[in-house]
Amino acid sequence: MQAGAAERAERFRRLHTEGRLFVLPNAWDVPSARTFEEAGFPAVATSSAGMMVSLGYRDGETIPRAEYVAAVARIAERLAVPLTADVVAGFGPSVDDVVATVRAVVGVGAIGINLEDQDPTSGGLLPLDAQVARLRAVRALGGELGVPLVINARTDALTGRDGTAESRLAEAIRRARAFRGAGADCVYPMRLTRREEIAAFVAATPGPTNVMIRPGLPELDDLERLGVRRVSFGPAASYAALGLLRRASAEILERRSFRSLIDGALTFDELNRLAEPRGPTGGRAP
Amino acid sequence: MQAGAAERAERFRRLHTEGRLFVLPNAWDVPSARTFEEAGFPAVATSSAGMMVSLGYRDGETIPRAEYVAAVARIAERLAVPLTADVVAGFGPSVDDVVATVRAVVGVGAIGINLEDQDPTSGGLLPLDAQVARLRAVRALGGELGVPLVINARTDALTGRDGTAESRLAEAIRRARAFRGAGADCVYPMRLTRREEIAAFVAATPGPTNVMIRPGLPELDDLERLGVRRVSFGPAASYAALGLLRRASAEILERRSFRSLIDGALTFDELNRLAEPRGPTGGRAP
Repeated sequence: MQAGAAERAERFRRLHTEGRLFVLPNAWDVPSARTFEEAGFPAVATSSAGMMVSLGYRDGETIPRAEYVAAVARIAERLAVPLTADVVAGFGPSVDDVVATVRAVVGVGAIGINLEDQDPTSGGLLPLDAQVARLRAVRALGGELGVPLVINARTDALTGRDGTAESRLAEAIRRARAFRGAGADCVYPMRLTRREEIAAFVAATPGPTNVMIRPGLPELDDLERLGVRRVSFGPAASYAALGLLRRASAEILERRSFRSLIDGALTFDELNRLAEPRGPTGGRAP
Repeated sequence: MQAGAAERAERFRRLHTEGRLFVLPNAWDVPSARTFEEAGFPAVATSSAGMMVSLGYRDGETIPRAEYVAAVARIAERLAVPLTADVVAGFGPSVDDVVATVRAVVGVGAIGINLEDQDPTSGGLLPLDAQVARLRAVRALGGELGVPLVINARTDALTGRDGTAESRLAEAIRRARAFRGAGADCVYPMRLTRREEIAAFVAATPGPTNVMIRPGLPELDDLERLGVRRVSFGPAASYAALGLLRRASAEILERRSFRSLIDGALTFDELNRLAEPRGPTGGRAP
């Protein structure tokens, strides 16, 4: 366990209940995480899709757990603000799989996790009781480790095609309530985007709600009025950064100008500073 | 050795002598490399600074060689166009160090290299005869491996503070001529930016010249008129992508808008496609 983990976890948890809605930027490597930290975000998350693709794996759980945890460790070791790690569906269906994964990311410095209820092998939802058991085990693990882990329980109930929009929303609410009862600090219905659905979801579920930045999402002030507490980037920063590379490439190949690579860019010293050894333990893990 | 390596090396070499000046984008991870490939660049390079910082190491040779080679491998395994790897100063001063490093990156799929003449421990220039011996050994290694490696010999003679601008340019030219004599395919004077210096350098050195995109560099058409054959990004795409993240962060924290993360961004499917297994060997290395 890293020094100060419990304090960082409590500091991160308070963001969910005190003050205004907060925005949580998802990073995929050291410089993206450090850029968010330097900009003033009070905490940083990992983007599982961004991180997996950056290492050459498609989103899901095709990446070996050890390689994924190592990528989380690289960020955690160099960050001073709290880091929460997306552990996808836990790298395995069983309680033991999830506990081993969460133990690993907490061991390298994460003080919060995202855990989703989609089965990566079938694409369908895990049975509710199975996911509840997994969340309870993660809650108990935090107690065992002495880290009051911030658990963000994601449900993919809205992303399927079965039933109607109404029945999917009802299922997302049913799952969110059960996840909250199992010890989740925050619930995260993937693809909750429409204003009316956000209002209905927030009204029907206890505790903080997380939504993800995506086209069509209401503005931050609107989300705050709707009762949303936490807005995460998801993979949006990867989408945007790669969009810039695509535009810069077209500009060079079609118009023979490299202006997009110069305007608003960091300097060499600014880039290099993003890899300075530091972080909660004051440097690299031993 | 990977299938088709010799053909890819020859295809890459021809870019230095046939047709117009070409632009070589430097990537630091799988999706940046694949974005450049999809945009239509005929070859991709690695950015040593971009890659090291993305993995949490400052520029230079603080990263372990094996970790660096693994990052080159991740890109090479998923790219169809030729990939040239920056091996910095070779991960060690001796001929054997350089040969081991180049053997490793060629082993994972690179068909060209950048080798610089700056001693990372002292910051000064390596003795000219030592660097010539290292370049000759790399040339011989290509013969041994059956891969006509494209060697880009970088000199840092212009980056020091000793002497005058004139004496530094003279030293860069002296080194470039010696490197070319030792088998380098292209010479790369770091910080060659001013129009008059570019013209003088190109006139005085045989073979292709590489310059790096940086503020103050003439436009591509001007560079072509000056006789430059190859223009590399260096770390410019890392600078630009992180500059976008910095602007998007400020926009969110100061103006509560996430517009910069939406406009011109990739979609999830576009991101995920960048990690599809493929490349010269048709997929992951065994």
